[in-house]
Amino acid sequence: MQIDVITLFPDFFTSPLQCSLLGRALTKGIAQVNLINPRQFTLDKHHRVDDEPYGGGVGMVLKPEPIFAAVESLTVLPKRQIILLTPQGQPLNQALLQELSGNYEQLVLICGHYEGVDERIRYLADREVSLGDFVLTCGEIPALALINGVVRLLPGTVGKADSLKYESFEVGLLDYPQYTRPPIFREWEVPEVLRSGNHQAIEQWRYQQQLERTQQRRPDLWQKWLESR
Amino acid sequence: MQIDVITLFPDFFTSPLQCSLLGRALTKGIAQVNLINPRQFTLDKHHRVDDEPYGGGVGMVLKPEPIFAAVESLTVLPKRQIILLTPQGQPLNQALLQELSGNYEQLVLICGHYEGVDERIRYLADREVSLGDFVLTCGEIPALALINGVVRLLPGTVGKADSLKYESFEVGLLDYPQYTRPPIFREWEVPEVLRSGNHQAIEQWRYQQQLERTQQRRPDLWQKWLESR
Repeated sequence: MQIDVITLFPDFFTSPLQCSLLGRALTKGIAQVNLINPRQFTLDKHHRVDDEPYGGGVGMVLKPEPIFAAVESLTVLPKRQIILLTPQGQPLNQALLQELSGNYEQLVLICGHYEGVDERIRYLADREVSLGDFVLTCGEIPALALINGVVRLLPGTVGKADSLKYESFEVGLLDYPQYTRPPIFREWEVPEVLRSGNHQAIEQWRYQQQLERTQQRRPDLWQKWLESR
Repeated sequence: MQIDVITLFPDFFTSPLQCSLLGRALTKGIAQVNLINPRQFTLDKHHRVDDEPYGGGVGMVLKPEPIFAAVESLTVLPKRQIILLTPQGQPLNQALLQELSGNYEQLVLICGHYEGVDERIRYLADREVSLGDFVLTCGEIPALALINGVVRLLPGTVGKADSLKYESFEVGLLDYPQYTRPPIFREWEVPEVLRSGNHQAIEQWRYQQQLERTQQRRPDLWQKWLESR
């Protein structure tokens, strides 16, 4: 998969793209991330990418021309999706990550100022995505989350394909509690059943924990799960 | 504010913490971010931080001892909050960012493996926070989002205090459309009213746009907004 990121802060991505599972996936060539700075597409001598808002107000607004020019400079693969990261977009969730990782060979992510881009930039995008109902200083963090979540689902990133199977949100429930050694840490012991070797009992316990945990912690997810059955 | 991040990948944070508004805020000393690697607190010669899950299953689970040791090594300020980043936590939102930025002088963020930490690590945390209903390879991205969103709200980070005022989610509505120069770009023109100089009309138009946009794009937020009135 080719991922083109339109960003005023390409340096932001340097270390996160080298780390951990994502770093290894990129090294293996499972995906390729290109960073494009719209400032290189400005035509004035000050390389101006933002300007004051029409109608007044504080904060600067990203101008349309450099973003259009940056996007239009890209090679276009047949299955392409252009995504604007903005708090006004569709909230990111696992279904969206799956759709993006399964159906496209090129993602173009427009970071912009997270607090304000010229409305006309939206006409470039096939889709607008929000990381959640909160405000950040920039769209680079949402873009990074999207890249990580999408590349993670591509074949070859996560060692065993099964380890993607039983996770939170794929089945609509929160995950069950996990334990590893030592069996007793301070006053807390690993539940007996997990050390029993009885696989059916373990599976049952885990499922029960998923149900209880979702019900207690996320009544909203719990309702959706009940309705989906 | 002091922010201590317990992370197996301290290098992840290098470039994001230097960029843009957040980088400037940290340089100005508005907040201080310390990166602590739990691997330094392991006692075995292999510096092992994870192990296989009890009861079987794929993927590794983060062991409790190094995380406890890392957290217990920290200086404790009076108003401190320890936060575990996990998909099973309370979803991050603007109200939570405001609570954290307004009430604490020390945040301890535990990144862990995002897919599995020993259940006993939860006993360390005052609170568990999720970035959203999706799965990432690591808790470093959620930690970064939280740091960015919290530091952004601290006095001095965003130039004019007003620029925080009328944003999405602070009033429970999505933002209004923004425009900047040029007045005409390709076939798209800046709405007449924004160039009218009539401040009352501009304010009215913007509010109307916020209502319409929230209703169309986010029926869930729209319902909450109606109920809150």
